[in-house]
Amino acid sequence: METHKGDNQGNYGSSAPNLVNRQTKANDTVINVNGIKIGGEEIVIIAGPCAVENREQLLETAKAVYSGGANILRGGAYKPRTSPYSFQGLGEEGLKYLSEARKETGLPVVTEVMDTRQMELVCNYTDIIQIGSRSMHNFPLLKEAGKCRKPVLFKRGLMATIDEYLNAAEYILSEGNDQVVLCERGIRTFETYTRNTLDLCAIPVLKRMSHLPVIVDPSHGTGHSWLVPAMTKAAIAAGADGIMVEVHNKPLDALSDGQQSLYPEEFVQLVKDIEKIAQAIGRKLYHHKPSLV
Amino acid sequence: METHKGDNQGNYGSSAPNLVNRQTKANDTVINVNGIKIGGEEIVIIAGPCAVENREQLLETAKAVYSGGANILRGGAYKPRTSPYSFQGLGEEGLKYLSEARKETGLPVVTEVMDTRQMELVCNYTDIIQIGSRSMHNFPLLKEAGKCRKPVLFKRGLMATIDEYLNAAEYILSEGNDQVVLCERGIRTFETYTRNTLDLCAIPVLKRMSHLPVIVDPSHGTGHSWLVPAMTKAAIAAGADGIMVEVHNKPLDALSDGQQSLYPEEFVQLVKDIEKIAQAIGRKLYHHKPSLV
Amino acid sequence: METHKGDNQGNYGSSAPNLVNRQTKANDTVINVNGIKIGGEEIVIIAGPCAVENREQLLETAKAVYSGGANILRGGAYKPRTSPYSFQGLGEEGLKYLSEARKETGLPVVTEVMDTRQMELVCNYTDIIQIGSRSMHNFPLLKEAGKCRKPVLFKRGLMATIDEYLNAAEYILSEGNDQVVLCERGIRTFETYTRNTLDLCAIPVLKRMSHLPVIVDPSHGTGHSWLVPAMTKAAIAAGADGIMVEVHNKPLDALSDGQQSLYPEEFVQLVKDIEKIAQAIGRKLYHHKPSLV
Amino acid sequence: METHKGDNQGNYGSSAPNLVNRQTKANDTVINVNGIKIGGEEIVIIAGPCAVENREQLLETAKAVYSGGANILRGGAYKPRTSPYSFQGLGEEGLKYLSEARKETGLPVVTEVMDTRQMELVCNYTDIIQIGSRSMHNFPLLKEAGKCRKPVLFKRGLMATIDEYLNAAEYILSEGNDQVVLCERGIRTFETYTRNTLDLCAIPVLKRMSHLPVIVDPSHGTGHSWLVPAMTKAAIAAGADGIMVEVHNKPLDALSDGQQSLYPEEFVQLVKDIEKIAQAIGRKLYHHKPSLV
Repeated sequence: METHKGDNQGNYGSSAPNLVNRQTKANDTVINVNGIKIGGEEIVIIAGPCAVENREQLLETAKAVYSGGANILRGGAYKPRTSPYSFQGLGEEGLKYLSEARKETGLPVVTEVMDTRQMELVCNYTDIIQIGSRSMHNFPLLKEAGKCRKPVLFKRGLMATIDEYLNAAEYILSEGNDQVVLCERGIRTFETYTRNTLDLCAIPVLKRMSHLPVIVDPSHGTGHSWLVPAMTKAAIAAGADGIMVEVHNKPLDALSDGQQSLYPEEFVQLVKDIEKIAQAIGRKLYHHKPSLV
Repeated sequence: METHKGDNQGNYGSSAPNLVNRQTKANDTVINVNGIKIGGEEIVIIAGPCAVENREQLLETAKAVYSGGANILRGGAYKPRTSPYSFQGLGEEGLKYLSEARKETGLPVVTEVMDTRQMELVCNYTDIIQIGSRSMHNFPLLKEAGKCRKPVLFKRGLMATIDEYLNAAEYILSEGNDQVVLCERGIRTFETYTRNTLDLCAIPVLKRMSHLPVIVDPSHGTGHSWLVPAMTKAAIAAGADGIMVEVHNKPLDALSDGQQSLYPEEFVQLVKDIEKIAQAIGRKLYHHKPSLV
Repeated sequence: METHKGDNQGNYGSSAPNLVNRQTKANDTVINVNGIKIGGEEIVIIAGPCAVENREQLLETAKAVYSGGANILRGGAYKPRTSPYSFQGLGEEGLKYLSEARKETGLPVVTEVMDTRQMELVCNYTDIIQIGSRSMHNFPLLKEAGKCRKPVLFKRGLMATIDEYLNAAEYILSEGNDQVVLCERGIRTFETYTRNTLDLCAIPVLKRMSHLPVIVDPSHGTGHSWLVPAMTKAAIAAGADGIMVEVHNKPLDALSDGQQSLYPEEFVQLVKDIEKIAQAIGRKLYHHKPSLV
Repeated sequence: METHKGDNQGNYGSSAPNLVNRQTKANDTVINVNGIKIGGEEIVIIAGPCAVENREQLLETAKAVYSGGANILRGGAYKPRTSPYSFQGLGEEGLKYLSEARKETGLPVVTEVMDTRQMELVCNYTDIIQIGSRSMHNFPLLKEAGKCRKPVLFKRGLMATIDEYLNAAEYILSEGNDQVVLCERGIRTFETYTRNTLDLCAIPVLKRMSHLPVIVDPSHGTGHSWLVPAMTKAAIAAGADGIMVEVHNKPLDALSDGQQSLYPEEFVQLVKDIEKIAQAIGRKLYHHKPSLV
């Protein structure tokens, strides 16, 4: 078939920087986290609370998401909050609870790092390092993430163009770490009904331009738990390699993001729903479950 | 289940204006266009060229989309173009070709009206009146559309909030016409890779706030034909009641929007793909086909 | 002096469409409205209420802005309102009050037209036709404005790029009317403290690209009367050829935009303040005052 | 005078966080940097190259801006660049050249810090710490800046709301450092003619909400040197307490931002121009010049 007039289809890859560019590496990058593969045929589900608030909250939520079908546990120990007077996370204590939750459920753990000085400590506890949206342009932090030997879940900044995002990812790869998962989590627009505008078109664009896996965070992308199911299904239909969703054992008591956190039973239903979408596009959910200790 | 803390779930409907508000009318509005129902269980496919360029182009494309599974034919006779020196549409001649295409295929027709003075003329030829994105705030035009007795396909402005959009729809309903189909077609953001940012989250938001059906235009929403399949599938997964997609018999020769127009064979494949997504969410495509004359 | 590396300084004009382009016409276009010149050395002040609400309100406000130093009276008879249930303007009755105010003060009048069918009527009453922000993409209306022989005050759309804006202006000029005044009135961004974000950089950009005069509307551009003085001074300092500001004899009772309307005494102070800025950049205010009848 | 209906005039201050809030401290904060006062009656001019590129470039530019009327010298030793393959700054070598330039001209120096680990080193060399736009949400860095005893020039993020910006500033003050200068430097919008959209309305808003001084960076705010004079004059007219402008001895050879850097002779003219604007609003430029060693 002829190519489209003026379509920059062929140029997409070429405008991405070198190491993240699909023209440099044609095959999809598949990242192996304790046996869970991100970027392969199977769709990966990351779930857990926004923040680690206390031992009981984390363990209870971890067991719930394990039972519901999650493959990886999320939870923040260091929280970037708009106000200095909001809950800032438990720090190392939170990291310890995450370790305990991993032991209890067998689920690998992802948690955010915000400061170059914390990188080593966080790496000692986590299976995947998360670099959050507000840190997308924290280049010293990206370089440190590039030097460590853990996979990096790297969120798009809420004001970042695709071009800036891929250049920022290149900072990580150029330091020697190519285990990077891209994550669309909503961009800032004029619309105020939703917390952010989830840019699902970024999925096919990023996958054409780069070989890196792409997941979606519908919780931050919408800001409302009742919108999460529709947007999660849409993300899978658009080709996402996984989702990262906030679940809390008691959303009404959450210290952050309660409004966008699913109840455990809502999460169970969500997994059932997206399994059907996955099948409809010829993919499946990841059913390799770690056995509970 | 308890409601979420701070969730404005319950308030959504109440902030919409009166007649479009789901609290005023709990049941989904279903619009019947020559037997094709928009807003019911079945998903409706509207397809055709951006502009009616000549008789041959339209008839050929109309037959192709009919064969491929379209339920309604689109085509512009009056075109809002950025430059006064670009092709402005064939005017009434284009409307006549649309009538001819309807006779040949049995497909109902949707075409845009831009001027209050053209309303009567356009209504004489079309089955559905389209009010385009650039006219969303053309209140005299909305009032005229409210006075005529044709269904209205009403596109969201490319920088309109949900709130403004529903208030604009209220202009149509308040004049006595409740046969309105809402259409998300992408909003303007800072991102430049795509022509617009398709705001799929508008689908569940609009469906919760209003009883009106909601469709999606992935062609304008992305600006690139290669992005249309992924975003169409995502739109269906997110709950859209239908899609409107640009198809051209010869995209390379199109006088407008060639870059975002599908080839007929791409459209055939698209319909197959979205049928699977429809089934995955418990809906189906509209297979009540008119018989060719 | 050498030109800057990569600066598109030289290209600015060339990307504008033909008739609005400064390369087509090097000299500034100066528009003469009953002896008031817009686009010359002197800075023009347009003032008056958002909407004509009744005879007394308009006449009282008109006399106040006349005394305060306004050169042209503004007032809307047809109002584009977000909701169909808000005050929509007095229509022809409002136009008659504007005529009366002109007789009483000698001030030329500017008022908005929204519908192609109203163009002739509005032209019979007004000295300058205003095309509002929401109508920037109403191409049939622009063509009608191009056919009439009145100056056009043409506002930038709140979502329009400079490029789209100049192409829309070209619609007016290409129909034979080159008496067009451009008006920056704020664009939509993510910021919510102000009603819009006043893009003052549009002034030097438009003046370099085009020969048309450029004025600024700080009332809509900010949405708050207390911000109007600072932004008016900034607009003059940035090179605006005039300002259009909302003044109401009783802002607390205004049927629209009361929050952003100045009290008459605030307007008096504003004129004094901007006179100093005008002098600082080598310009002056327009002191050719019409004599009261 | 009565207050405006619905005006949130009275509420502005109250929505800002505690320590930055003008309700907490009614008087303007004035920051004293080696005798140069920022936030007082006099307007402060900060000038210099985007990046310190080499000894000769810095010293030559420093002398030029000193002669032209600058009060403080700017220059980046650590540069946040979109691509990892762009010039990243000279690091400590650059800091040493800044020290040398201070000795030669007597001008205090401002330079950016990007990494918590560099804070102590940078503090040893600079008079004012700059936290750049991309670091506005780098909360660990803000806390470190709050612990040191140097004034902080704190830039608004390019997609930060006023609310987020003031909350981020609160991070610095809450650690004990109230010597913070706010800086508007352009926000990201859909417009592509300019690098960013300079939000001059932020000046009066920030000054009403907070007691902190506010300056403007017209170089990043526009991205083009030919736009700098107009927007600098506008910034002063709108009430800015100072400006920060990029000047390079050889803009065509600049390793970064050459397109937006002024030639020394353009800077000389700029200072003359803004002096007139300053007088027009009852302020003056800072003429306390340090004597050359």
